[in-house]
Amino acid sequence: MGRLAYVNGRYVPHAQAMVHVEDRGYQFADGVYEVVPVIDGVLVDEEPHLDRLGYSLQELRIAWPVTRPVLKLILRELMTSNGLKRGLVYFQVSRGVAPRDHKFPAGIKSALVITTKRMNPPSEAVLRHGVAVSSQPDIRWTRRDIKSLSLLPNILAKQAATEAKAFEAWLVDGDGVVTEGSSTNAWIVKDGTVITYPKGHDILGGITRLSLLELADKTGTKLVERSFTLKEAISADEAFLTSSSAFILPVTSIDGQQIGSGKPGPVTQQLRQIYLDNVARQVQAAS
Amino acid sequence: MGRLAYVNGRYVPHAQAMVHVEDRGYQFADGVYEVVPVIDGVLVDEEPHLDRLGYSLQELRIAWPVTRPVLKLILRELMTSNGLKRGLVYFQVSRGVAPRDHKFPAGIKSALVITTKRMNPPSEAVLRHGVAVSSQPDIRWTRRDIKSLSLLPNILAKQAATEAKAFEAWLVDGDGVVTEGSSTNAWIVKDGTVITYPKGHDILGGITRLSLLELADKTGTKLVERSFTLKEAISADEAFLTSSSAFILPVTSIDGQQIGSGKPGPVTQQLRQIYLDNVARQVQAAS
Repeated sequence: MGRLAYVNGRYVPHAQAMVHVEDRGYQFADGVYEVVPVIDGVLVDEEPHLDRLGYSLQELRIAWPVTRPVLKLILRELMTSNGLKRGLVYFQVSRGVAPRDHKFPAGIKSALVITTKRMNPPSEAVLRHGVAVSSQPDIRWTRRDIKSLSLLPNILAKQAATEAKAFEAWLVDGDGVVTEGSSTNAWIVKDGTVITYPKGHDILGGITRLSLLELADKTGTKLVERSFTLKEAISADEAFLTSSSAFILPVTSIDGQQIGSGKPGPVTQQLRQIYLDNVARQVQAAS
Repeated sequence: MGRLAYVNGRYVPHAQAMVHVEDRGYQFADGVYEVVPVIDGVLVDEEPHLDRLGYSLQELRIAWPVTRPVLKLILRELMTSNGLKRGLVYFQVSRGVAPRDHKFPAGIKSALVITTKRMNPPSEAVLRHGVAVSSQPDIRWTRRDIKSLSLLPNILAKQAATEAKAFEAWLVDGDGVVTEGSSTNAWIVKDGTVITYPKGHDILGGITRLSLLELADKTGTKLVERSFTLKEAISADEAFLTSSSAFILPVTSIDGQQIGSGKPGPVTQQLRQIYLDNVARQVQAAS
């Protein structure tokens, strides 16, 4: 049997994973999602991801589609069915299906869709050379802390970055400040201090960002959560990005300008190793 | 046979109108839409609506799913099948179905979904008393001129207004300016001058707004397209809102404060009549 998807209570072949056109996720972007990395069949940072799902749902007053323990069971069932060892589990929850009307409908059930995808780790070449970033204006709404389906500005920025031959877009607000990437968090290193935008409504509270802050703090890394400008980023010693799918990737150029030595820096490499060790510990503990 | 919907080339019973979970409209709000009013079986302001669809598609670089003449045929076919005389036709176009990735996928076909809905005109009571409006912060992205599916801030504002026992939310930016409603355009009348926010990226270019500006100009009404504050709106002589579904509705209170006499004002009523006459002419011409 081919890959399955979970759609509102049923496991169905991926190609037949369908939702109604009046699912509010489709007509209003009225829903939230999570992407959880899977390594050796283990969901990495599962609990923080579920915590954040709960936060997003709560902020939008969308009910959990199933209880948290049941969701965990379904994730495992789908991973097992699909033989997923390394890759991503994607799940999204929308407010549900109702005749189109902006107001929250009464008495409907949240919709839950889950898919899985195999994915290889970043290639050696990417890790050795780092990735290029392109700056793009941050034109998003003001509640970026909610991991919502309202991703149109994000995909436009990513597409613009792709056309600029960059791996990711770093979003720059009206003050010239880098808030975050289109689907990643943004970091720089200057004089040994690791800097990233502070948590709040302006950015998504990335799970890898959160874990890395905790892990790096334990190792005595100097960390500051503060805003930094694009100009500051370009003159930083190192830069990197974090996400649930890429973990930590060195950024070696921004808008075509070399960062630091133009090669992945020592702090970035050390943090990546710290993070990978943590993942390995999680996998071992769960196996 | 019950009501049909059109989904990607097929006319299907409304309850079975389904799209794939990896339709980018569902995962990224990567699509646009239009709502066209139908009076006596005639699509009102059809051409400006199709023009705006073309604009939205172009801004997002989404291809037309079918040619404009074919879309017009399908709209008519669906209206005829559903016996739609009075109501709304809703159509949405997304970038199509592809494995989830922020970047624009290559070689996929835009998705087209069309539904119809019966709807009665606003009740006599609503027209006699006007509606209440609640001010809400405008927290949207900066490309509100694109009629995209990225409507999460709009539904949150509408819901907040509903809970404040108002018909609509008027969105107020950081400078205290009313940009527009959550799904309508906002207008005030002061000393005989009709005022509405200027066209641009800050607001959706409403079709009813556009038609009304043209019609009112012909009758010699004094019109100004400029921004106005919430404070100014509350002390206006009259206020009203426009949309494709409600046409023109008097606004008689904002945040619980009475506007002017607290009754629909003479300019508002005259403009509504001018607009209805225009609709009647369109219907007659098409019949």
